[in-house]
Amino acid sequence: MIIGLRPLDGVLSANYWNTRSESLKGIFFGNHFAGGENSIQRPFYFLRKFKIVPFWKCLNALSFAGMRALTTDNSPKMISYEKIFENNAEWIAKKKATDAEFFEKLAIDQNPDYLYIGCSDSRVTAEEMMGAKPGEVFVHRNIGNLVVSIDVNVMSVINYAVNYLQVKHIIVCGHYNCGGVKAAMTQEDMGILNPWLRNIRDVFRIHKEELHAITDSKKQFDRLVELNVREQCINVIKTAAVQKQFIHTGYPIVHGWVMDIKSGRLIDLQIDFEKELKGIQEIYRLI
Amino acid sequence: MIIGLRPLDGVLSANYWNTRSESLKGIFFGNHFAGGENSIQRPFYFLRKFKIVPFWKCLNALSFAGMRALTTDNSPKMISYEKIFENNAEWIAKKKATDAEFFEKLAIDQNPDYLYIGCSDSRVTAEEMMGAKPGEVFVHRNIGNLVVSIDVNVMSVINYAVNYLQVKHIIVCGHYNCGGVKAAMTQEDMGILNPWLRNIRDVFRIHKEELHAITDSKKQFDRLVELNVREQCINVIKTAAVQKQFIHTGYPIVHGWVMDIKSGRLIDLQIDFEKELKGIQEIYRLI
Repeated sequence: MIIGLRPLDGVLSANYWNTRSESLKGIFFGNHFAGGENSIQRPFYFLRKFKIVPFWKCLNALSFAGMRALTTDNSPKMISYEKIFENNAEWIAKKKATDAEFFEKLAIDQNPDYLYIGCSDSRVTAEEMMGAKPGEVFVHRNIGNLVVSIDVNVMSVINYAVNYLQVKHIIVCGHYNCGGVKAAMTQEDMGILNPWLRNIRDVFRIHKEELHAITDSKKQFDRLVELNVREQCINVIKTAAVQKQFIHTGYPIVHGWVMDIKSGRLIDLQIDFEKELKGIQEIYRLI
Repeated sequence: MIIGLRPLDGVLSANYWNTRSESLKGIFFGNHFAGGENSIQRPFYFLRKFKIVPFWKCLNALSFAGMRALTTDNSPKMISYEKIFENNAEWIAKKKATDAEFFEKLAIDQNPDYLYIGCSDSRVTAEEMMGAKPGEVFVHRNIGNLVVSIDVNVMSVINYAVNYLQVKHIIVCGHYNCGGVKAAMTQEDMGILNPWLRNIRDVFRIHKEELHAITDSKKQFDRLVELNVREQCINVIKTAAVQKQFIHTGYPIVHGWVMDIKSGRLIDLQIDFEKELKGIQEIYRLI
């Protein structure tokens, strides 16, 4: 918990924006956080002991984390480090109870039909929301579910999935209320995140007429999430690996999804893969 | 299914290495796959109708996919595209039955304590094997669970997780029988995958004395998986974001895990984070 003194009016605003168990990390005061009543006398102690953050950084954190800073503490109790290993033991026992040889079979090989490219967001649990079992989905997750041509990381994933695993479907899955998409459209210098998030502004630029025509900011945000998924699907289709494999085998098919966090529902954006492929091949045909 | 005629002895070896429902995609013959008995007469038809693959490419696929090509078909039946949406509806109903406001709460914000950096391998389902719920783990998955300093993708994930989400723990999780690690050590030109996988050879180079001393190739492979996790943990610690945040708050702690697919067990490599941090700061200290 961080109790905030707003710099302009000095009123205690009690923003519980960091709701971790450590509780009170500092009080922000003027344009700095201070670690307690003695902080002015002992700035360096508190600089290390507590986190000293300029006020504008706090604002960044607020906007970036998608309104993480709310006035009430409604975060669920987090899983402890030790509990993870207990859960793992329970999971193993459960799997073995259903099929004694579950892990022996799993260890032999992987043969997934799906490549899933989704957001790193902790709420969009790829396999769980799809009801997919271990072995069924090859997964890449990054901030904003982006597919960038010079990113060796995601390009290696696509290349491996298409050429070696020969997946049948490639899914790009975004989600409403995406912190990455929100951050990308915020007027702030985010350091190392700038070049990554700029890809989302590039999506906005391509579709700016449609987006500027939407006056409701919430609807505009939702539409940008959808258009970002669509453009990342197109980025997948632009690759030589996908174009080549599709001509030879009729696979993979590329799909765009949005997960609506408010309902848990997966929405298929019904991207017409063959039409998109034909459309973009006017410029991007590689074979 | 692809039935293989081995090029050296011409014996039908019936490698069911691709066990998809489409079944027979081609017969490999000499140093090429052929699409059927008329393929020599109608090469272009079969080039499109069936997948024509040079023999060496088939070998690559075999070694890369971690012995995907086995002589028996033991792959589980894959989830269908339609079934995913049925599963999603069931999952929503189940979550709501436990907590009617589950998704409303989830939609408010994310506040995970964990960043998980793991392999894209379909068998290593991050949240499921940890027993973690939606909202608890921010996830990045790539081939070989690599953390590369010039990779804007993974560096954005770390930066966001540490500076904005302020995660308490960063986990790098590898797994035995990793196709990426295996492929990295194979004498083959893998095109776009070369620069990515080279990071794993760099790990081997750093630890070559220890690894060369292991005569059992299976044990050497397992040890390389462990050392790769360790080196990727060190790569996380090298970042300014982690060094800075740790000095200010005592978090995040970096952990290295290996998932043993044969048993499902998560093994904590017990990396001494503070010792590692001190050790690498001799050269990599940034603040």
